[in-house]
Amino acid sequence: FGLRIGVLTISDRVSRGQAEDKSGPLIQQLLTEYFESKNTPLSFVTALVPDELPQIKEQLLRWCNEDSLSVVLTTGGTGFAPRDVTPEATKQVIQRETMGLTIAMMNESLRCTPHAALSRLVTGICNSTLIVNLPGSTKAVRENLQIVMPLLPHSVALIRDNNTSHSFEKN
Amino acid sequence: FGLRIGVLTISDRVSRGQAEDKSGPLIQQLLTEYFESKNTPLSFVTALVPDELPQIKEQLLRWCNEDSLSVVLTTGGTGFAPRDVTPEATKQVIQRETMGLTIAMMNESLRCTPHAALSRLVTGICNSTLIVNLPGSTKAVRENLQIVMPLLPHSVALIRDNNTSHSFEKN
Amino acid sequence: FGLRIGVLTISDRVSRGQAEDKSGPLIQQLLTEYFESKNTPLSFVTALVPDELPQIKEQLLRWCNEDSLSVVLTTGGTGFAPRDVTPEATKQVIQRETMGLTIAMMNESLRCTPHAALSRLVTGICNSTLIVNLPGSTKAVRENLQIVMPLLPHSVALIRDNNTSHSFEKN
Ligand code: NA
Repeated sequence: FGLRIGVLTISDRVSRGQAEDKSGPLIQQLLTEYFESKNTPLSFVTALVPDELPQIKEQLLRWCNEDSLSVVLTTGGTGFAPRDVTPEATKQVIQRETMGLTIAMMNESLRCTPHAALSRLVTGICNSTLIVNLPGSTKAVRENLQIVMPLLPHSVALIRDNNTSHSFEKN
Repeated sequence: FGLRIGVLTISDRVSRGQAEDKSGPLIQQLLTEYFESKNTPLSFVTALVPDELPQIKEQLLRWCNEDSLSVVLTTGGTGFAPRDVTPEATKQVIQRETMGLTIAMMNESLRCTPHAALSRLVTGICNSTLIVNLPGSTKAVRENLQIVMPLLPHSVALIRDNNTSHSFEKN
Repeated sequence: FGLRIGVLTISDRVSRGQAEDKSGPLIQQLLTEYFESKNTPLSFVTALVPDELPQIKEQLLRWCNEDSLSVVLTTGGTGFAPRDVTPEATKQVIQRETMGLTIAMMNESLRCTPHAALSRLVTGICNSTLIVNLPGSTKAVRENLQIVMPLLPHSVALIRDNNTSHSFEKN
């Protein structure tokens, strides 16, 4: 069936028309390129919200509850600025945090630049949807997606499989 | 006095008799081998529960409250599948998360395989008991125990010592 | 304007006069040395409390609410001993956890010694103040500050800038 992906751009400036959203389209482009060679069909929905916790939360919940997307990738709002509240909105939506994925992403980013320590990104599962916060900068989006993309098909398969007790089958 | 260790196998399939528990016995074997050479006496109690949050929580609380074990090692239920709720049960039981231990385990696992990003394991302290989630697969149990085992004696000594103000004694 | 820094020593033994606080003064010394060469003016306030959650919390809140310091660095109370509750007090005060910084600090410490897995340090933002838990030992203070110090000016600038939507300006 492939992957149904939501890309949520979170930015006051883009919402006001004061900046161009380069990261949202880049996410679509990188995923399309990566999964083309793997013959995994993708479909995208996109949205844009300002750095407002209720609006971020509402869009995440709609995509997880009504649309039941496979994956939601957010970009923006993960830093230290007062209006950066994407991780807090995400924490209020997910039922299960995916700390290994967060650490894997942070480690790769820190390998690229010590500045990655200023990322507060959160990842987790809401119902049957994996939510992954990506930073706002295109450079950081690239770095983090290198870690995330190869993990998506197996992650989504596990989240969707109600009858797999995965853990003990590998023994 | 040595270490009083609880090994909790968490698996629907093992609970239903549809799979053999290889990870629980492996944990006992690896700990026995490791601490034999260190002359640290060990005692074990074991239990098996399905992937049900209330049952996981009940067993953890019994071992931490009534039995006051030194360490509880769980195996299974740390992945992305819908029934994987071991980390959530653990979070509801611990009073103090041990994030350094979690990160050390994740880092070692990620060094072995990128797939370790799909682990959601949690570690923390409930009363005087250290609880450590291990993944379900025997391979991951081995990797993670390499990090955990050498830290256990000092961890347990610190948790049990009411009069040690450890931090400022080393100066 | 420079950085207004609070150094909070958290220790039962130092509070009772049974041990000397070496870590608090070391933090001041290392910061002074580091920022002298960068021409960043610093001012310090210091405090000492025992390992009591309410007292730790009260001092953190005073510095974040009334004094609005740039940064609060705590030392002590981050380990596994029963009275080590600095991370729990910190979690109750911060509104936004800074997980990337925590992971960066943990990774550096783990690179120095596997014993760093016993650190439970938390970092996060309360209002306009960055709170960073440092361990109690002078060795660990040095290791962790190597990571933290270079990040402070940019961190504080971001936290204080109400109009910067940082994320999308770099594209
Ligand atoms: Na202490």
